[in-house]
Amino acid sequence: MTATAAAHPAWLPTAAFAPLGRRAIAVVQGDAQTETVAAEAAAATTAHGGSAVRFTGEAPRADIVFALEGGLGDEAFRVRRADGSVTVAASSGRGLLYGFFHLVRLGEAAFEGSGEETHEPSRAIRILNHWDNMDLHPVMGAVERGYAGASIFFSVGDGLPGSGHVRDDLSRVGAYARLLASIGINAVSVNNVNVHHREARLLTDDLEHAARIAAALRPYGVRLHLAVSWAAPVMLGGLATSDPFDADVKAWWAEAADRVWAAIPDFGGFVVKADSEGQPGPFAYGRDHADGANMLAEAVAPHGGIIHWRAFVYNHTQDWRDRSTDRARAAFDHFAPLDGRFRDNVIVQVKFGPMDFQVREPISPVLAAMPNTRVALELQVTQEYTGQQKHAVYLGPQWTEVMRFDFGGDSGQTVAALAQGGFAAVANVGDDEFWTGHPFAQANLYAYGRLTWNPDASATDLLDEWIGQTFAGEDATTAAAIHDILADSWRTYEKYTTPLGVGFMVRPGHHYGPDVDGYEYTPWGTYHFADRDGIGVDRTVATGTGFAGLYPSPWRETYESLETVPDELILFFHHVPYAHVLHSGTTVIQHIYDTHFEGVERVQRDIEAWNAVSGSLRDRDLVAGVDERFAEQLRSAIEWRDQVNTYFLRKSGVADARGRRIY
Amino acid sequence: MTATAAAHPAWLPTAAFAPLGRRAIAVVQGDAQTETVAAEAAAATTAHGGSAVRFTGEAPRADIVFALEGGLGDEAFRVRRADGSVTVAASSGRGLLYGFFHLVRLGEAAFEGSGEETHEPSRAIRILNHWDNMDLHPVMGAVERGYAGASIFFSVGDGLPGSGHVRDDLSRVGAYARLLASIGINAVSVNNVNVHHREARLLTDDLEHAARIAAALRPYGVRLHLAVSWAAPVMLGGLATSDPFDADVKAWWAEAADRVWAAIPDFGGFVVKADSEGQPGPFAYGRDHADGANMLAEAVAPHGGIIHWRAFVYNHTQDWRDRSTDRARAAFDHFAPLDGRFRDNVIVQVKFGPMDFQVREPISPVLAAMPNTRVALELQVTQEYTGQQKHAVYLGPQWTEVMRFDFGGDSGQTVAALAQGGFAAVANVGDDEFWTGHPFAQANLYAYGRLTWNPDASATDLLDEWIGQTFAGEDATTAAAIHDILADSWRTYEKYTTPLGVGFMVRPGHHYGPDVDGYEYTPWGTYHFADRDGIGVDRTVATGTGFAGLYPSPWRETYESLETVPDELILFFHHVPYAHVLHSGTTVIQHIYDTHFEGVERVQRDIEAWNAVSGSLRDRDLVAGVDERFAEQLRSAIEWRDQVNTYFLRKSGVADARGRRIY
Repeated sequence: MTATAAAHPAWLPTAAFAPLGRRAIAVVQGDAQTETVAAEAAAATTAHGGSAVRFTGEAPRADIVFALEGGLGDEAFRVRRADGSVTVAASSGRGLLYGFFHLVRLGEAAFEGSGEETHEPSRAIRILNHWDNMDLHPVMGAVERGYAGASIFFSVGDGLPGSGHVRDDLSRVGAYARLLASIGINAVSVNNVNVHHREARLLTDDLEHAARIAAALRPYGVRLHLAVSWAAPVMLGGLATSDPFDADVKAWWAEAADRVWAAIPDFGGFVVKADSEGQPGPFAYGRDHADGANMLAEAVAPHGGIIHWRAFVYNHTQDWRDRSTDRARAAFDHFAPLDGRFRDNVIVQVKFGPMDFQVREPISPVLAAMPNTRVALELQVTQEYTGQQKHAVYLGPQWTEVMRFDFGGDSGQTVAALAQGGFAAVANVGDDEFWTGHPFAQANLYAYGRLTWNPDASATDLLDEWIGQTFAGEDATTAAAIHDILADSWRTYEKYTTPLGVGFMVRPGHHYGPDVDGYEYTPWGTYHFADRDGIGVDRTVATGTGFAGLYPSPWRETYESLETVPDELILFFHHVPYAHVLHSGTTVIQHIYDTHFEGVERVQRDIEAWNAVSGSLRDRDLVAGVDERFAEQLRSAIEWRDQVNTYFLRKSGVADARGRRIY
Repeated sequence: MTATAAAHPAWLPTAAFAPLGRRAIAVVQGDAQTETVAAEAAAATTAHGGSAVRFTGEAPRADIVFALEGGLGDEAFRVRRADGSVTVAASSGRGLLYGFFHLVRLGEAAFEGSGEETHEPSRAIRILNHWDNMDLHPVMGAVERGYAGASIFFSVGDGLPGSGHVRDDLSRVGAYARLLASIGINAVSVNNVNVHHREARLLTDDLEHAARIAAALRPYGVRLHLAVSWAAPVMLGGLATSDPFDADVKAWWAEAADRVWAAIPDFGGFVVKADSEGQPGPFAYGRDHADGANMLAEAVAPHGGIIHWRAFVYNHTQDWRDRSTDRARAAFDHFAPLDGRFRDNVIVQVKFGPMDFQVREPISPVLAAMPNTRVALELQVTQEYTGQQKHAVYLGPQWTEVMRFDFGGDSGQTVAALAQGGFAAVANVGDDEFWTGHPFAQANLYAYGRLTWNPDASATDLLDEWIGQTFAGEDATTAAAIHDILADSWRTYEKYTTPLGVGFMVRPGHHYGPDVDGYEYTPWGTYHFADRDGIGVDRTVATGTGFAGLYPSPWRETYESLETVPDELILFFHHVPYAHVLHSGTTVIQHIYDTHFEGVERVQRDIEAWNAVSGSLRDRDLVAGVDERFAEQLRSAIEWRDQVNTYFLRKSGVADARGRRIY
């Protein structure tokens, strides 16, 4: 069984190509990606009885014509409809490819009406970061925070240090690139941002194998990026330093860049996690992040390369006894003062919230604090803190909420508008049969891609797009049931896990399942400070860590005051008594009890809804996969409910107003 | 550097042999162990200027004569002193060996006075169980609960599954056997009781290598035992079952025993952990522990072999919500009903407490509940829950307290008297320079051996014996300082860790450092039930799990009543309010605060005392090792103090009466 043969078609099943495949398609001769469009057209028409021809010069008569035209942006495409036929025009094959999958999404609707529309992506860089290891990591395994099997890029070899390598068979990488192109993703970094010794060598000894990955991605217009170690000049180059001001260090990186672009002409650039969670960085030499990023940026600039520099920098050896240090402030305190100092080809990559991809956090104030920097928004498609692809959790609504958050006042812009550097996210696929562990987790990959292309898209519409393509040919009842299960699932997960923005409360290390005090007395800076009287972190300017003051008005005032802070974030900004009454009219303690009972009840109803339709689904492997994960989700949701409720009953002594069973 | 060359001499430095080595010694010709005595005498006299001769028939004149005589027990020896010369007599070389090290311990005092004494061990079997893995275990490493480097018996090879093997160079095993003989230990099981696939093969493919270990132990009279997997007939023999009533299974074990004894004529027997923490056992076939143990006992009986069958059986997948299941009851409920059903060559091996080697637990009621069974007391020399050989903790006082505990009433016997099956303990050595990680942890190995020989010995005297030999030649101030540091150290550790018998509160998995709620919501059955009002586990008959009722009178009444339960065990037997006043006159909450502050202060004073003498010690490696561990002990003790105090301040809301800093 080859890797490709085993993979689920995700949202590109043969049935989804029927509306196109029945028609006559003409594809211009052109670049590599245009050839890919032609191959897609040939495959679709072969499967569904249409026809596909190639042309140069004048387009022949056809139901669908893919033509190259000047005057459009690099990745844009224009669709003209008239009399039941469609012309897709673009200035390059990449635009045609996006246009092709646009028609697939529309299905029969692509041929209705008349007129002309132009589509183009919101941002030039729409990347996925894989946290894949080449060597099997003793704690993190093959993929850090991976919940879908092993890496599609790398084999860990026999498990021994040094034996990991790029896979010989990269056919599945090609299939992945196709999925990515169909949703508008145009870049991937393939190795973990925690760059271990083996992976660092992708830059040197293994460059030819990195080039094989790039070749597998290229037909679908997806560019390869690599995560690099700040210490590479020492680790690989034998230099005594990686000081960014050192001439030998600069020369080493310039040579490394020359070598990489010589091997991979369309290489994208480097992703860097520096001075973060134990990774090396410029601090060791008394330099700051701008010094570090700019030195790398200079090395890649001659090749048009980009440096993605992560802003996820904080003290991970904090003393829990120290109440003045606030991890939430860290990225702001490190980066905001550097605004304006980064080169144009540096993108500062900022996690959406100030902590770490929690189910609910405020928006990171860093996003509004660096108007003179190319800032990228970083999301997490892999469900590290949101059910680890065992729980059905559709994150589209969270991401649209983030992207549309308006900082107001002086900055007066949404996160999507501020993210001039584009979008990045931690990937969620592996060599699992369904790519993503839970088959429904495909919807997150789908929504992430589509939102990076158009942040104004509706999460609900995208969910329906995904359902429509993935379950093409299944009946409407099934689609409606899956829609109902997923549409609200992010909020359901929030209900049965951590309340009111407080975050964490997960088992240390693997981050799955509840442990209310799991991180409370650790060096990680993630505390809830629950005592017998109340809970929450005072991050006000008046009496707390001052984090609320890092926001522009009106948000600083909104978060500062108990009168105005949104319920869902109250414990992120304030320490309040259990009896504090929320805007909802419920006390904090009763809210905790109510939401935890509601969350479990909702999962139970979702399972019933699924069982009512799953019998008729043709893909029995998918049904079995979903069934198994629903059983685990329910078990886990009950465990969350009972541990959290018991913890707070024991601590507060306040009985549930509705007299339900708390242990 | 060979393993042996690197090893610290422990309590047998050359200096400790001076009183004997200066004299004229005559050793009779005899068996293998008698030859060892002769070799020891030769080495000692060579080092210190005396002389050693061999004889047959009539003993020559000498300061010390080692002679064989009939009429003494197998391992006993008789010492006669007259006119400054000493005769040691025994019926075999093993007795002479014990007599030799007896004289080493006495030093010059061995030659003073006149008269005759006979010494013999309290019990026939005095064993150490090594939990050593052959293959590197992904979680537990080379030695499960090992804090002193890798196994002295096994190499894990290149770390890959299947590559572990018995070490080629077993010289360090010989040195270990010598240490064991010098304190009266006569048996070791060398592989982990959690028998993984690789280790299981010691019984079959690797038998010749097991025989090499036995050969390395033999000169010092130490017998080899092996831990075996209940599933061996399936795993190794290819049978479809390991049902103890199955004829093929019986035949497989009988053949296995024949094979082992053919290769190792003085082989001791098998150690079995069955139906415990995921290990296979007879339950799968509807058989009980007596059925299982007796089947194996029958297989080894023709060879005089012994089955050590562990009573550590409980439900490790308990639901924390279930308040009726009590892990403390489990061994009793499983084993007490089987009293009288075990064959004579089965030893039921019972942990000293009902939980798991905590710093403080009540004595296991199983020890008094099986008068018609050969029961062995199991202790833990490796400091899993008592500082992991980073903290200076001398366990002698805990063990003497255990051994002298008198069940009173009907049974009316001490634990030492009830332990007709002898003594077993989890070993604490590895290939570390000092054998035991912390050099002071050697004292625990020493005390364990000496107490198995004579449970009436004083823990304080044994500490001084150990100090006297180990630091032979250092000045009296140093000896006094080390004595003061260690004598109370078990109680110091108790003070800064878990209070009043409640146990656990450790980080799950590795069990090092504090995590008050770490096991509170897990399946392991180890809970404290702390809420805002109080803490402890109600194990009374009246309102709790009934565990107190498993003791004979008067203990059942003593533990049942708050009036009589000893302070140090109150939270093991009762759930009480924080304001409950202990017999000491202090409230529970104030006791928690006081002892945690006291414990840290004591560690600080111990470090000062050590620093005052360590400068003059000649062994600078040892000083460096102790210094490093003291720094970690202090850091860890402060962490325990602050986490525990903060946790209970947050929960109880009761301020420290003395106004000390609690975070």
